[in-house]
Amino acid sequence: MGSWHAIIPAGGAGTRLWPLSRQNHPKFLLDLLGNGKSLLQATVDRVSPFVDSVTVVTGRKHYAAVKEQLPALGSAELPGRIIAEPSPRDSMAAISVAAYLIGAEYGDQAVVSSFAADHCITNTSAFETVCRQSVQAAQQSTLTTIGISPTEPSTAFGYIAPSQTAVAQNAYLVEKFVEKPAPEVAQRFVDDGYLWNAGMFTAQVSNFAKWTKEFLPQMDLGLQQIAHEYQTSNAIDQTVWQGLQRIAIDYALAEPLSVRGEVSVVPASNLGWSDVGDFAVLQQFGSSQNVVQLRGQGNLALPSSSTKMVGFIGMEDCLVVDGDDAILVLPKNESQQVKAFVDLLRENGDTRFL
Amino acid sequence: MGSWHAIIPAGGAGTRLWPLSRQNHPKFLLDLLGNGKSLLQATVDRVSPFVDSVTVVTGRKHYAAVKEQLPALGSAELPGRIIAEPSPRDSMAAISVAAYLIGAEYGDQAVVSSFAADHCITNTSAFETVCRQSVQAAQQSTLTTIGISPTEPSTAFGYIAPSQTAVAQNAYLVEKFVEKPAPEVAQRFVDDGYLWNAGMFTAQVSNFAKWTKEFLPQMDLGLQQIAHEYQTSNAIDQTVWQGLQRIAIDYALAEPLSVRGEVSVVPASNLGWSDVGDFAVLQQFGSSQNVVQLRGQGNLALPSSSTKMVGFIGMEDCLVVDGDDAILVLPKNESQQVKAFVDLLRENGDTRFL
Repeated sequence: MGSWHAIIPAGGAGTRLWPLSRQNHPKFLLDLLGNGKSLLQATVDRVSPFVDSVTVVTGRKHYAAVKEQLPALGSAELPGRIIAEPSPRDSMAAISVAAYLIGAEYGDQAVVSSFAADHCITNTSAFETVCRQSVQAAQQSTLTTIGISPTEPSTAFGYIAPSQTAVAQNAYLVEKFVEKPAPEVAQRFVDDGYLWNAGMFTAQVSNFAKWTKEFLPQMDLGLQQIAHEYQTSNAIDQTVWQGLQRIAIDYALAEPLSVRGEVSVVPASNLGWSDVGDFAVLQQFGSSQNVVQLRGQGNLALPSSSTKMVGFIGMEDCLVVDGDDAILVLPKNESQQVKAFVDLLRENGDTRFL
Repeated sequence: MGSWHAIIPAGGAGTRLWPLSRQNHPKFLLDLLGNGKSLLQATVDRVSPFVDSVTVVTGRKHYAAVKEQLPALGSAELPGRIIAEPSPRDSMAAISVAAYLIGAEYGDQAVVSSFAADHCITNTSAFETVCRQSVQAAQQSTLTTIGISPTEPSTAFGYIAPSQTAVAQNAYLVEKFVEKPAPEVAQRFVDDGYLWNAGMFTAQVSNFAKWTKEFLPQMDLGLQQIAHEYQTSNAIDQTVWQGLQRIAIDYALAEPLSVRGEVSVVPASNLGWSDVGDFAVLQQFGSSQNVVQLRGQGNLALPSSSTKMVGFIGMEDCLVVDGDDAILVLPKNESQQVKAFVDLLRENGDTRFL
């Protein structure tokens, strides 16, 4: 196979993890699992052993923090770069600007794989296996995604319906993508063998550019111009960037291509995958080392890496999240409400804490 | 009248206010009311306008912190001293060592009044009035205490049963002291006009010494020796101090003297007095400025002087207490259980947090 390159779009505050995550201190920069690495650092460490370069695409305001967390990125040891987006332009622009730059540097037979910067995967060898399978499927001229075998009928994820048609080892044509389901539908999706859409995409650069040109011709022109100028300036042309369409790669490429039978999915189980989406998810990584309970049980304190002790008296199944300047207290089963809480702060004009 | 001197024994960790109060950072050193003063500073500020000197008696390990909080103490502006006890010897030793030193300096016609270092009084002019009345009663050769008119049938305080016999203006002979009552008895005490024992005592030094010599002759000898040596060494003789009896002034003097009709009480209402004994008491001083609640109400965060925000989701009437290295979460009506929680920490051997 040719060269293989990781693209890691690092954006999004992670509102549902307030007060740990903030606009200026987003989820991907946090050591949420208490293992001494931020989610971004863990993502780079996970993919760098098997790819030829790593490109992180992040907002300008996070550029310095990302650079500080990834000091080796761009060295001979860890080839790659950090691209600072002049403004947020959604996932299609973020991934494709990286893909076009990689194509300019490594040629259009290069394969690119995009990985979220703020997910967790504990089984790295199983992960490498499915990533390699996604490359083989991508070399069959499909846009390939990795689909997570559901462990529960979650309503927090979109689903992927695979067909029986194999395009490569453990890779099947996608029948359709399905939005986050209502609770009553989710179980049926699981029963029917649908997979969670974890937002990981692999494609050959030549195909990526071809599809972009077909579906988003204006964006293709802009990206070509940006890639051309980047060679000399080493920066993204701000004016051209502002003109790029705001669209998610799911709507821009994955859905229209799936209708034509040009998307494949590699099913993956036992990855230990999590999107670390809310505190309910984070609980499985929590320890009770920093918790003392009098008459009560099931209480948890986050982050579990904190040396601060949290005491509970007469409480059951509650969660205390201690941030630098704010504390959040909630029943564990209210974790989904954290976003609504942050919305309340915003309505109150309490911008200090956003 | 002759000279008048305040004695402020500053001891006791205030276990029920954990994690704000600690063995090494006791309650009296804390700004619990969020008014920019520790309880000790507020106590000194409250009495210094009307007494001739202030003597603070504290443990050796708190001496430096007390000195730092009271930089003017000992100056011409605020005559007095801080006495460092070589070891805890209960309230009789703490108050009487100060009384004997004051007697040696100002003569035995001097009047001494002892005040807890960790109580709160909001009505300072009413407080001064009852203090002056206690001096007049003390000059009738009684040990005088200030009794707080109960605002509820509390079981947290001992009670004082006054007689109808006046010894001075608004001062009545005490019939008896009564221990903290059972809940079913407390209401009867209130109905019978009993008063809360707030541990404030006033006496002439000559009487104080006479009573000490009568009831605790060994202690009297030790105190005389300590006072004599203090003149030259400016320190408490450690060996003599260790030999002093450990006893509360209530049992040493107040109870036996009350039996003989030599204790009087000045009833006080509307002082805005509180012993700041637990978080339930502290709530009335709390503000909700640093609290944000989503679907829930009645939640409180302490200390209210904190700039740290506390968010609650789906919680009712809970309390979050944020200390430097520990957080405590409890329903408000469990405030009495904080001591049991600290006992649990001690049993667990978690000495870091004691």
